[in-house]
Order: sequence, then C-alpha cells, then structure tokens
Amino acid sequence: MKVEGDSALLDEKLQKIKQIVEKELSCSAHDMDHVMRVYKICLEIAKHEENVDFDVLKAAALLHDIARVKEYQDSTGSIDHAVLGAEMAEKILENLGYPEEKIEKIKHCIISHRFRSSIKPRTIEAKILSDADKLDVLGAIGIARSFMIAGHWGQKMYLDVPLEDYVRENVVNGRIKDIRKHAPNLEFELKFKYIPGKLYTKRAKEIAKERMRFMEEFFRRLKEELEGRA
Amino acid sequence: MKVEGDSALLDEKLQKIKQIVEKELSCSAHDMDHVMRVYKICLEIAKHEENVDFDVLKAAALLHDIARVKEYQDSTGSIDHAVLGAEMAEKILENLGYPEEKIEKIKHCIISHRFRSSIKPRTIEAKILSDADKLDVLGAIGIARSFMIAGHWGQKMYLDVPLEDYVRENVVNGRIKDIRKHAPNLEFELKFKYIPGKLYTKRAKEIAKERMRFMEEFFRRLKEELEGRA
Repeated sequence: MKVEGDSALLDEKLQKIKQIVEKELSCSAHDMDHVMRVYKICLEIAKHEENVDFDVLKAAALLHDIARVKEYQDSTGSIDHAVLGAEMAEKILENLGYPEEKIEKIKHCIISHRFRSSIKPRTIEAKILSDADKLDVLGAIGIARSFMIAGHWGQKMYLDVPLEDYVRENVVNGRIKDIRKHAPNLEFELKFKYIPGKLYTKRAKEIAKERMRFMEEFFRRLKEELEGRA
Repeated sequence: MKVEGDSALLDEKLQKIKQIVEKELSCSAHDMDHVMRVYKICLEIAKHEENVDFDVLKAAALLHDIARVKEYQDSTGSIDHAVLGAEMAEKILENLGYPEEKIEKIKHCIISHRFRSSIKPRTIEAKILSDADKLDVLGAIGIARSFMIAGHWGQKMYLDVPLEDYVRENVVNGRIKDIRKHAPNLEFELKFKYIPGKLYTKRAKEIAKERMRFMEEFFRRLKEELEGRA
C-alpha cells in the first residue's frame, strides 16, 4: 500500500497526527501499514452509517495503535496499548487544539478498540474502529499477515494436529504459550473464525462474510495441496 | 504437514536417506517440509506418466536439496546446491548399495532440478522432479511461502510500484539486489507467472493452471482489500 497516496485524504491536523504516529511506530513499519489499512476501511464502513463524526473517526483510526511499540517494549507485561494509547492521544489532541468533547469521543474509540477489552464500543465511531481493526485479520490481508508472522517467528507453514490436543498443550488462559509452535491454520481455527460474530456494523459484517469465505477456501486449498491432491 | 505420516511411503533405504537429509537440513526445518511436499507431488505427477523408475524418483526427491544449507552458509557464493547436492548424493547412495546406473540417474535429477540450471532434465524422473519443485512456489503453498519469506526478511505486505521502475532499481542480472525491499506481489509478477511455461509433464501443467488461477485471485483480492474495496 502506498502510504503517500493517502495524504490527499487527510487535512492538516490529521497530517500532523499521522506524522506523530509514524514517528512513534517508526521501528515497526508494518504497524503503520496496518494503521493506514484500518483508516481506509473505517471510511468505507462509515459510508454506510449515519451521523458519523469524521473528525473523531479519522483521528481515532490514526491514533488507535500509537502505544503498540511501548506495549511490545514493556517487559513487565502491564501496559495495555489501548489504555496507554488513549492517554497519549489525549495529550496530542490537546496540543493540536481539538475540542474537549471530541477528545473524549476519540479516547473512547481507542480504549474500546481492543479484542479483549472489557470496555465495549458505545458510539458509532468506536464501533466502526473496532470493526475495521478486526477486519484487518481476515481475508487476503489476514492470510498475508498471519504467514508473515509465521515467517518472523519461524513457525511451520501448517500444523496438522487435532485442535483439542493443540489447545490442551499450548493454550493457557486464552493465550498461546509458545508462539513458535503456533501456525496460521490454528490461528484461523482458534481466533479468526469467531470474528464475524463480534462485529457491530452492517458493512463490516458484509465485508467479513466475503473475507471469511476466501480464507476458508485458502486453508482448504492449502491442505489439499499439502496432501499432494491439488 | 505431518512428516511422520509419510513414513509408510518409504522403504528401508529411503528411510535412511530421509534421516540423512533431515540431519543435513536440521537447522532449517522448513527446507525439510519443502522436501516432503516435493516428494508427495512427485508421486502424484508420476501416476500420470509411464516407465517411471520409482527408485530413482523417490531417492532424487528426498536428496534434491541436501546441499541447501551448505549453499546458504557459503559466503563466497560459489556453491551451487544442485551441483554439490549431486556429489553428496553419490556418496550416500554408494554407501547404501544403490546400483551405479541408478546413482547416475539420481544425480542427473538433482543436478538438473534447479530453476537456473544450464543442464536441462533429460529423463522422465528428472522432468518430474523439476516440475514438482517448481509447483511448490505456486498456489496456496506459494502464497504461504512467499509471505513467510516476507515476514522473515521484514518485507512489506505489498509494494504498489510500477514493475519497470522496480526492476530498474532493484534487479541486477536477474537477481533482487535487496531482499528486504522485495514483496510477494513482485515475486509473483517477476517469477511465479513464468513457471507454468517451464513445466514438462501433463499433470504438473494441470496442477499449475489451477494453482496460478488461485494465486491470481489472491493477489487481485489483496489489492482490492488494501484499497478498502473488499
């Protein structure tokens, strides 16, 4: 994705936000690519919703993962990038002169976007951001991402093990014990399949349906090819 | 792929060859997975051919990449794993008591299997191995492999650049200058698309057609999703 190509979408304050986020995520270019994909798909979903505050949605999309790198680097495991991200966003938005009411709405989007968050999205902007973030693990993008993660961590291309056995041995409190013993097909079975049921907006559900269909086809084909049948 | 599941396919000498290859490729588990995928697809292609010497084909499939690790580790760039692999195979097969005539045929398969090799496959077994090795970069397997490589080298998920510009700046003598500036969609455009034209056997051509169709669909979908359209 050409990040430069997105500039036209952004007004001046958003450009500044984008630059701040880019700097914050500079050691992790892929996260910035994710941010811009989420930004784009937020706009697509928003087209099909009413009363969306685009100032809120756009700033929240750009800022939602700003604390990702700080979460990675935190050896104590106590940083939640959604919580810290909302705090970081507050300061940035105040400096840029965003009205307090918009800042509060943007913070709610960021704090509630996370998969496991106990704070659920209440506003339409928060629902759109949550959906857009989830869609980014589905479809061809989801396939590409999960195999890139596999390559990064030295995972196998495919693990042909009964799911119950895998879960008993490698999943503790809903977390994968050893990421190197994981594989994209297991991530698909354990996580991606449940995403469509967690979406809020109509357009996101439509997109998810098509992306899931393609993902299922992909993993079915992969298995057939691995067995020398296709 | 369950490697253990393949044991039934292999007789005693082949089991020994497999163990030797596994040991040689032990620092690179993915290469062994590739070897076993190639082995399986060789058998599938061979079903549709006549007068195949399975002793030759099976041993050659297991041994074809035995010098891969030595090629990687060679800082001078002078080792060609196809040439060295044939030499290593010769010694292994002699020790296992393979007849000289079979050893020669197996060596020909190994030395001629490589993409860029100037020695072209002359026998049916060499043609099958060459085809099987090429098929392993196509289809869902090819997608998975190329994104695993992308993740390993820190490549972008997608590079939306005109192909001519990319080739002018990053390809020298048919080689990618900086693997980190490469991306799976460019590998598809520059290399994978030309593979179906380089196959010898009827069954491999059929498989390639279907795998290419799926790969094209994948990269078309990926682009649509990245543009926020799907």
